[in-house]
Amino acid sequence: MLCARVWRALSPLGRGAHLSAWRQTLNYSSAARLDLSGIYPPIGTPFTDKEDVDYQKLEENLQKYAQIPFKGLVVQGSNGEYPYLTEEERVEVVRTVRRSLPAGKLLMAGSGCESTRATVQLTEKMAAAGADAVLVVTPCFYKGKMDSRALIQHFTKVADCSPVPVVLYSVPANTGLELPLDATVELAQHPNIFGLKDSGGDITRIGLIVHKTKTQDFQVLAGSAGFLMAAYCVGAVGGVCALANILGRELCELERLCVSGHWEEARVLQQRLIEPNATVTRKLGVPALKQAMEWFGFHGGACRSPLQPLTEAETQQLRRDFSSNGWL
Amino acid sequence: MLCARVWRALSPLGRGAHLSAWRQTLNYSSAARLDLSGIYPPIGTPFTDKEDVDYQKLEENLQKYAQIPFKGLVVQGSNGEYPYLTEEERVEVVRTVRRSLPAGKLLMAGSGCESTRATVQLTEKMAAAGADAVLVVTPCFYKGKMDSRALIQHFTKVADCSPVPVVLYSVPANTGLELPLDATVELAQHPNIFGLKDSGGDITRIGLIVHKTKTQDFQVLAGSAGFLMAAYCVGAVGGVCALANILGRELCELERLCVSGHWEEARVLQQRLIEPNATVTRKLGVPALKQAMEWFGFHGGACRSPLQPLTEAETQQLRRDFSSNGWL
Amino acid sequence: MLCARVWRALSPLGRGAHLSAWRQTLNYSSAARLDLSGIYPPIGTPFTDKEDVDYQKLEENLQKYAQIPFKGLVVQGSNGEYPYLTEEERVEVVRTVRRSLPAGKLLMAGSGCESTRATVQLTEKMAAAGADAVLVVTPCFYKGKMDSRALIQHFTKVADCSPVPVVLYSVPANTGLELPLDATVELAQHPNIFGLKDSGGDITRIGLIVHKTKTQDFQVLAGSAGFLMAAYCVGAVGGVCALANILGRELCELERLCVSGHWEEARVLQQRLIEPNATVTRKLGVPALKQAMEWFGFHGGACRSPLQPLTEAETQQLRRDFSSNGWL
Amino acid sequence: MLCARVWRALSPLGRGAHLSAWRQTLNYSSAARLDLSGIYPPIGTPFTDKEDVDYQKLEENLQKYAQIPFKGLVVQGSNGEYPYLTEEERVEVVRTVRRSLPAGKLLMAGSGCESTRATVQLTEKMAAAGADAVLVVTPCFYKGKMDSRALIQHFTKVADCSPVPVVLYSVPANTGLELPLDATVELAQHPNIFGLKDSGGDITRIGLIVHKTKTQDFQVLAGSAGFLMAAYCVGAVGGVCALANILGRELCELERLCVSGHWEEARVLQQRLIEPNATVTRKLGVPALKQAMEWFGFHGGACRSPLQPLTEAETQQLRRDFSSNGWL
Repeated sequence: MLCARVWRALSPLGRGAHLSAWRQTLNYSSAARLDLSGIYPPIGTPFTDKEDVDYQKLEENLQKYAQIPFKGLVVQGSNGEYPYLTEEERVEVVRTVRRSLPAGKLLMAGSGCESTRATVQLTEKMAAAGADAVLVVTPCFYKGKMDSRALIQHFTKVADCSPVPVVLYSVPANTGLELPLDATVELAQHPNIFGLKDSGGDITRIGLIVHKTKTQDFQVLAGSAGFLMAAYCVGAVGGVCALANILGRELCELERLCVSGHWEEARVLQQRLIEPNATVTRKLGVPALKQAMEWFGFHGGACRSPLQPLTEAETQQLRRDFSSNGWL
Repeated sequence: MLCARVWRALSPLGRGAHLSAWRQTLNYSSAARLDLSGIYPPIGTPFTDKEDVDYQKLEENLQKYAQIPFKGLVVQGSNGEYPYLTEEERVEVVRTVRRSLPAGKLLMAGSGCESTRATVQLTEKMAAAGADAVLVVTPCFYKGKMDSRALIQHFTKVADCSPVPVVLYSVPANTGLELPLDATVELAQHPNIFGLKDSGGDITRIGLIVHKTKTQDFQVLAGSAGFLMAAYCVGAVGGVCALANILGRELCELERLCVSGHWEEARVLQQRLIEPNATVTRKLGVPALKQAMEWFGFHGGACRSPLQPLTEAETQQLRRDFSSNGWL
Repeated sequence: MLCARVWRALSPLGRGAHLSAWRQTLNYSSAARLDLSGIYPPIGTPFTDKEDVDYQKLEENLQKYAQIPFKGLVVQGSNGEYPYLTEEERVEVVRTVRRSLPAGKLLMAGSGCESTRATVQLTEKMAAAGADAVLVVTPCFYKGKMDSRALIQHFTKVADCSPVPVVLYSVPANTGLELPLDATVELAQHPNIFGLKDSGGDITRIGLIVHKTKTQDFQVLAGSAGFLMAAYCVGAVGGVCALANILGRELCELERLCVSGHWEEARVLQQRLIEPNATVTRKLGVPALKQAMEWFGFHGGACRSPLQPLTEAETQQLRRDFSSNGWL
Repeated sequence: MLCARVWRALSPLGRGAHLSAWRQTLNYSSAARLDLSGIYPPIGTPFTDKEDVDYQKLEENLQKYAQIPFKGLVVQGSNGEYPYLTEEERVEVVRTVRRSLPAGKLLMAGSGCESTRATVQLTEKMAAAGADAVLVVTPCFYKGKMDSRALIQHFTKVADCSPVPVVLYSVPANTGLELPLDATVELAQHPNIFGLKDSGGDITRIGLIVHKTKTQDFQVLAGSAGFLMAAYCVGAVGGVCALANILGRELCELERLCVSGHWEEARVLQQRLIEPNATVTRKLGVPALKQAMEWFGFHGGACRSPLQPLTEAETQQLRRDFSSNGWL
């Protein structure tokens, strides 16, 4: 892929020709597209007691995840505490995952930063470190100015320059900002933008995005396990679910039930997953995710400050939300 | 049913015995329960140019709705402009609908007011006017104080005193308040509370409510057509959908597809309904609903002030949202 | 004043002439304007244990308020639980207050309803019952449609038809809606709209409203004691403050200090009032206001359901917020 | 100051003793405190057309600011586009300002990052680059977990380790998070935390913070020009105001009027500043600030992407908001 400066010098026609040619060279180009369908854990980043990245524990987790029929891994989604990592750490974690990842699994790396130029640069580094695709979150600090015009320009530049496919990432609980529908639909036409991870969970919106992008081969991934079945129902192709760090096999089973049309069994399983999911995301967040990982045989480890360990009462609530649904 | 004062004097045991006995006397008691499953239009209230209720046009609409396989009608949901009607008008509209409604169709009447005592009184009047069930919205003016404790007490008193089954109604876009999950689950145990109309559309929450009330025979209705299919998918039994005032047959067809497990066809139909639904609810509201009713052969009529007629630009947007999905 | 129908038949020019003439006939027309400046308690409505209006206790409160240098009383602001009163009760409470009110004190009555026609009718009844002015809250149920266009039309019709001066009322904590700045500025030009009670507390907005209406002789009243001094500072002329039900003399003293430019002393007093005010409004609401009234020698009485009595923990917090500031 | 690790090894008593001793060594220790009172522009960062930092233009701006009676400068508040700068750029800009700043002016540098460890490190670099104090914004990505416990721990660690005084920074429009009152009051007791920049503008809250910290010599700065006078009125000591980049002399004049008790004149000036301020902050943001800087003789320059240049319509609105108040 050309760097941004050369790219900008091309005419729109030139850009199209270049992208078509370039798209043939992608890893997944034989399939003419990147198939995103399936379940991904957005893996947590284990830290030592001194809050350094614990690469040893990370690798042990990866070996366990390798036994689960995930489509791939997301490295540095919100649950990976990426805003707390330095750029060097962000890249090094991706490199570590690349080394451990079995062939045929997809590595999607979060490369979003606040500025367009930093996002472009980190995207290039992530690709060089072995990412098969990048997950690019909406910039959000100047949320009053992050309208469709700004976001379209941002994601277009990033996708223009990215050596690997781009997946959009909307996570309003953290960013205070939802990628607008019209911007999503326009960006879906970009040849290097392949999908959206939608963590907002508005199922009407998800259905409408699927509907309005159906000619673009644009793929929507549910951003949380709480609405995974409903998202499949309205046309999503998979999920990036924090809970997959803990109950990965169960989420892959839920995928199988949805994809094969066993909706009744799917519903029973889905319902038992809502509370455990809520507790490790919206209610108690990353510290709860990491605590529950420990209970289920994975390394969670500490969080980086200012995230705090759970209080005793929170730990009990966490346990209750798993046990009352038969998981503990 | 006993009035509230006598009721309060009963022991919990006495209450249970009384309710069991009383429940046998309900219209629907032969089925041991009120089956809410199906599609309901929350009918609009036509007004004359002078903003009086136009009973003539209302009856003409009712005759047309009688041809559509609705489960019943909701009178004075949010789309009926009930906050703009006097108490007398609210009751008279119910009486009018009762006279026109074919046998076997269910009449659900909105009877919610801000105070508990006013709600109890209007509920009794609605039952006397022929309502088969009442739909009771969350009081909302003192929203900071409408916590689970207050809402449980409110709905319990109303249900204790109501001669007909009660359906809870949560519509945060209008009330600024969502009926909390814990309150919903507790209220589901009341023998005279049969279900919930949920217009918020949080599909994770809907799935969880179905899950946590599964032993109570509590029925959830989707409060909007935009997430009807997803709601069926996670366990809802029907929908009260503004769009059913316009595309009633299509929504009944969507119901049939979901209930019979034709999910692929359901998805195609659902997707074409999202934009028309959004435009007559969230985006342009009741004035758009009434305008579109005119286009589809029903009487919409004017809105009562302060609701304003659509601007020319809004009318064009409304038309576009129907025509771009093949409905006009 | 002409009724709405005749009014609408007049040309704009005719309306202006009529209003000028009519304004000469107002009670306060000798002063060429209604002077709103000063402090008003938005009086609570005492109820008996059976939740009926307790007119006896109301009158006893009124006798005590007559000893305090208030500018007048607001009857049926949010603290009066007006959404829980029937129309007859609303009018009867105003009539009761009129009988007790010393000469020279202003009676401002809340007459806002959801529909324009109901507001017009209740406004007329309030005037007939003795209100010197009416306080008209923004309609709010269809909040998505209550834009400037709708609100300007609503308040204009009400003001056109009202026999007494109109004060606008914006209270977003209850309505979920703030009267937009542009609508406020336009409505300020109406000859029968004299001011705004702003309970939102955005001091920048209050300053800007004062600035943009300075040629209209439009008067802004702070809607809460927490920002009363700051509101005076930026140009407000008084306050309608729940806390005046309890610490009325102190708020009149704060008024005196602000108006006379004793800002240093004002600040000391203001600061001691913030927590007691917050606790009887935003934090614990009307039940706390009524409980504290009892402690300070007034009749609070019960609230109407669904408002609940304070819990023991809430009562302690309430006491602490008064005692830690030296009031108990 | 000791580094964090040594610090943590000290007993609370040892910490106190150390801080007392250390505080004597501060630049401002002769006054026994850091006096923050006065007006500060949170300076914009000029970029070249290629979006590189334009140090030349920055210095020219600094020379102009040196002529205005500011108390000092804030480098890398929200208006400095700090989230778009690399760490190296952030430090280099501070170093550049330090070189140009006249003696006696205070340099307050934004050093907030998402993680505690990154904030500690950047704080140390800012101090080494010449900052007299640091302004530390609330971390916000995991906003659901940023409760008082987490924020107290974060700011305490930063303040423990900072070689220079710390000023807290709450800017909910960008972060979606307000520093809670109880956390603010507790943090005010830390010997190395000297004040708060509050950009939320809730004047009741500002008054209460002043009240509850009055024994701590804790200083509150208004974070925007729109409520500067009201903030002085309730006890703030100054302001960090985007508008000071443009109308710096006028804001210093407003300060003089407030401090000297000329409230009537202050009000007239304050009112004329509200709209120009709103337009360069809440309404149109940093691109408008930079555009207006150009009109008033300063270098604004481009913004970094994804911030977009103003549209033609926005530029006209910007001009109108200045000209209608007599500034253009």
